[in-house]
Amino acid sequence: MAADRVRILETIQNYIDFVGKGTADDVLGLYAEGATVEDPVGTDVRTTRESIREFYAAIEPLEQETRLISAKVADGQAAFLFEIVTRVGDQSYTLAPIDVMTFDDDAKITSMRAFWSNDDMAIS
Amino acid sequence: MAADRVRILETIQNYIDFVGKGTADDVLGLYAEGATVEDPVGTDVRTTRESIREFYAAIEPLEQETRLISAKVADGQAAFLFEIVTRVGDQSYTLAPIDVMTFDDDAKITSMRAFWSNDDMAIS
Repeated sequence: MAADRVRILETIQNYIDFVGKGTADDVLGLYAEGATVEDPVGTDVRTTRESIREFYAAIEPLEQETRLISAKVADGQAAFLFEIVTRVGDQSYTLAPIDVMTFDDDAKITSMRAFWSNDDMAIS
Repeated sequence: MAADRVRILETIQNYIDFVGKGTADDVLGLYAEGATVEDPVGTDVRTTRESIREFYAAIEPLEQETRLISAKVADGQAAFLFEIVTRVGDQSYTLAPIDVMTFDDDAKITSMRAFWSNDDMAIS
């Protein structure tokens, strides 16, 4: 029995909010035990809680704003386009990845794969 | 050696154009031998050329307009958000799926998985 659409959309919105303004532990709390993270696609897959925490701890101190652009749920899985704007001094770095996630019955994330590349980064 | 970003983006644009205005065989020509199609995610995976052709032949006669909204390429794979507007009489049915594709060295599609559900359909 897959998690329902509404709960999956809540997890996605929480994910985006926490990546922007939350702590690494806030984000980690959305992941199921045994979850995997591949960000971006093609890099080593993180398979331990410690390595996933390390990934989000690296972005925790950054000044970031995030917003969901579009989320699609199908059969307990989802893909969504969102935007991250990182401010460093006077410059803004804007990236809009598409993340693909699978979820357990409680709508906790069991896997995340992020599609983006440096070519997608806009600097203003 | 993965296909390069530019060729993958060309294949994606051709895919979107052919789904809108091309024939089933136009679309099929973008797929590698042995490719698979799961549209939407959670339905039976089409594994034969005949079954993939049948899928696109079903939409070939429809009056459709398509446009790419955002495509992200990573390591010879891609995810993209696009819009399909289908006109039936006076009504327009708008759907914006996120498709995830893998590609061979020649940027032919080796797998396609489409994230969308009926909840995403807008009627105007």
